[in-house]
Amino acid sequence: MKGSTIILFGGTGNLAYKKLYPAFYNLYFERQLADDFKIISVGRRDLKVEDYKSIVRSNIQQYSAINDYTMLDGFIKHLVYHQLAFKELEDYKILKNIIDNCVEECVNNGNRIFYLATAPDYFEVIAQNLKKSGILEIEEEAFKRIVIEKPFGKNLEDAKKINKTLSNIFQESEIFRTDHYLGKSMIQNIMILRFSNTIFEPLWNKECIDNIQITVSETIGIEERGRYYEGTGALRDMVQSHLLQVLALVAMDPPKSLNTEDVRDEKVKVLRAMKPFSAKEVANNMVLGQYYGESDIPGYHDENYVQENSLTETFVAMRVEIDNPKWDGVGFYIRSGKRLKRKVAEIVIQFKDNLPFNLYGEKIKEQNNLNPNLLRIKIQPNEGVSLGFHIKEPSTKDIITEKTMDFCQNCEINMKSPEAYEKLILDALTGDQSLYTRWDEVQASWGFIDKISQTCLDRNRLLKTYSPGSWGPSKSDELMKKHNVKWWTV
Amino acid sequence: MKGSTIILFGGTGNLAYKKLYPAFYNLYFERQLADDFKIISVGRRDLKVEDYKSIVRSNIQQYSAINDYTMLDGFIKHLVYHQLAFKELEDYKILKNIIDNCVEECVNNGNRIFYLATAPDYFEVIAQNLKKSGILEIEEEAFKRIVIEKPFGKNLEDAKKINKTLSNIFQESEIFRTDHYLGKSMIQNIMILRFSNTIFEPLWNKECIDNIQITVSETIGIEERGRYYEGTGALRDMVQSHLLQVLALVAMDPPKSLNTEDVRDEKVKVLRAMKPFSAKEVANNMVLGQYYGESDIPGYHDENYVQENSLTETFVAMRVEIDNPKWDGVGFYIRSGKRLKRKVAEIVIQFKDNLPFNLYGEKIKEQNNLNPNLLRIKIQPNEGVSLGFHIKEPSTKDIITEKTMDFCQNCEINMKSPEAYEKLILDALTGDQSLYTRWDEVQASWGFIDKISQTCLDRNRLLKTYSPGSWGPSKSDELMKKHNVKWWTV
Repeated sequence: MKGSTIILFGGTGNLAYKKLYPAFYNLYFERQLADDFKIISVGRRDLKVEDYKSIVRSNIQQYSAINDYTMLDGFIKHLVYHQLAFKELEDYKILKNIIDNCVEECVNNGNRIFYLATAPDYFEVIAQNLKKSGILEIEEEAFKRIVIEKPFGKNLEDAKKINKTLSNIFQESEIFRTDHYLGKSMIQNIMILRFSNTIFEPLWNKECIDNIQITVSETIGIEERGRYYEGTGALRDMVQSHLLQVLALVAMDPPKSLNTEDVRDEKVKVLRAMKPFSAKEVANNMVLGQYYGESDIPGYHDENYVQENSLTETFVAMRVEIDNPKWDGVGFYIRSGKRLKRKVAEIVIQFKDNLPFNLYGEKIKEQNNLNPNLLRIKIQPNEGVSLGFHIKEPSTKDIITEKTMDFCQNCEINMKSPEAYEKLILDALTGDQSLYTRWDEVQASWGFIDKISQTCLDRNRLLKTYSPGSWGPSKSDELMKKHNVKWWTV
Repeated sequence: MKGSTIILFGGTGNLAYKKLYPAFYNLYFERQLADDFKIISVGRRDLKVEDYKSIVRSNIQQYSAINDYTMLDGFIKHLVYHQLAFKELEDYKILKNIIDNCVEECVNNGNRIFYLATAPDYFEVIAQNLKKSGILEIEEEAFKRIVIEKPFGKNLEDAKKINKTLSNIFQESEIFRTDHYLGKSMIQNIMILRFSNTIFEPLWNKECIDNIQITVSETIGIEERGRYYEGTGALRDMVQSHLLQVLALVAMDPPKSLNTEDVRDEKVKVLRAMKPFSAKEVANNMVLGQYYGESDIPGYHDENYVQENSLTETFVAMRVEIDNPKWDGVGFYIRSGKRLKRKVAEIVIQFKDNLPFNLYGEKIKEQNNLNPNLLRIKIQPNEGVSLGFHIKEPSTKDIITEKTMDFCQNCEINMKSPEAYEKLILDALTGDQSLYTRWDEVQASWGFIDKISQTCLDRNRLLKTYSPGSWGPSKSDELMKKHNVKWWTV
């Protein structure tokens, strides 16, 4: 396989240092990169190449899960740093020379991947300058691809604008919209669990499932990201991207094939089938929260760059319905927030317990109000699958109890799931878009979120504060209670 | 609760010593017996009561899983031994006096349970003598029950004869036909797993299930039971009772309620729906085996009381079909034998892997021929449930692998499932017949077995030898191969 020249915009940012370089190194260590790959890092900072390399080196040592750095010297040799102002066309012309030289030097055939690890504000100008500078004029047999980090815009309008610009310059097949959640091992497993096993899919419908819960929680606050977060909030930052993508994977119909477009077709159908909320429904189906401070933990208002009376939500919980025959009436409860009790990402499928063949229903209720059957797909920090079920207590009495069949992926010795970015980078290199989002998916999820966010969300009334280390405002539990359910991820 | 007087026939036999007394003691230890219970043991041997008590005492110490004998003295006080020849009416008259005296002495209200832990040859004469001697004339508010050990006769004709005699003397509600397998914790769980969970029953049909396998294997030979075994064989000894009962529980439709008769109604429907074999079909669907000797392990022919040219099978494997809409075409593979590789009782449900939504079918076949989804219900020595399923290998490659979600009941600390006989004895005391077989069940299973055994089984041609420690004759694997399956219990 011929390698590629990766032009990494935002090469001095946190994402590059903490996630991308460690992922690149891991791939290199596992010999999954072609010999002639090259990373040309561009950033606004004035740094000597050697200094940059040593920063990258120490970040890899800090953040790569592979504790073997014997190949680090070899990896660093593939690295170049180039100072560039994203808006300066002249700078791109110099970049072009460097890239062109590299083609010879690197012996790759001119494949170019532009990785935009920058704020969304720069997506358009970078793409435009790439075009104007002639960098995109590549040899016929070579490919060019652009990888865009999330968030893809700030709202639907913004996303449309960015997309229009990109689409004028790149083909859809060349645009890789990142949602790094899709690179996680257990997220990739949602489809495999559903469509390579017999035992789940026949149960996967409104007849057998009572509700589905998706929780992605963090214990940290917004840290130094106040500037970004203030204009965003949990709904746009997490729900629009990660949580709706997970929801789409959980709720999609079986696609015609595993072909990327067939899969995306089914995902987008789910995203489009989400019932929009009226203003009244929003208040009934949605909880927003904002963490306050406690002892030495700063509240959201204490964070840098946060406005004094900010109504930005750091927590969101909501009940979504999917308006199609498969899911009619089934509640999808999604929840995400910062400064919550624990860091966890998990999907819980709650099965109905009142099916006609359930002869023990009354007995179970009388005895001890057992939980219904629960299938947990654990994404992080635990990775695995577990199934809660009912069984007799091992005694001479006829008491039913509940037990769990468990499979823990990262309990296995020497088991280390690859970082999400490893898989995503590899797919970008090989041109597989399955784990990247297509424009109509982004459009559908922004459409759903915008409707809520812009037209009917009275933050003044809805936003409740919550204490750090809790599971968000008590309204979140009340939301569940209203629908006779409760959060299973606690 | 008023207690009962238990009259134990065969009180000096192995079953009484190794199974019944330890079970009685465990129940006593757990305070599940009424204060005024009494066990009157009757046997042919001339034994002093004190000697008998000390034999019972040492057997309990040897065979009870409860390692606390602080209540043994108390228990032994409830015990009486009385010599009696099963055929001698006069002896029963003396027994009547003892029982009558006990009613006063024991302060129970005359409840009588006749536990026949004897060979089936004695069932009738004991019942008849009980009647003739007046022992069955009890007070109006008291109950009388008869517990019959398996095998219930040697064949259908014999069973009918026994049943006719018993039915003239006892009501069906007073007749407790033991199949001690039904007392096992995980056998009781078959119904609870199926009918108290949502996740199994929707899959429990020919659409989702490819085949079902039931294995009950032993590592020991026939030991000192040659006299009994020669006239019986694995088909009658194990299949007619235990394995067909398990099959009925696995394959039954959901009963109308948990009411004993509703459950038995559904079980008997399965037993009656088993497709009978023609002579030709028997040869195609059935394997018989007999273990030979190896180094210091005696072959079946070397055992005491075994005829020189005996064609008695010590191994049987067969494919059964159930002729109803739920199971049409699904193979039920049942297997039992002595001197096999390991002692295990297990049900394996093999799910179909070619369902329409299975997008990964081809991939799985190409890659590594993974096993299909398997639900294992482990009865002994391990007790538990496990579910084999497909998942992605935790790597950046798209390789599907198989893993198991596991629940192990007897891995839990301090977990000791009660002995099957504890549950059965308790149910006989309380009058619950759920775990005892009704006459029509016995009739249906004998009918099925007799058809095979008496009309179309050419043992000369079918019986193959097998080495001790194997899984039976190689024909057993060939039987599976013919139907494109294999034994999952290995």
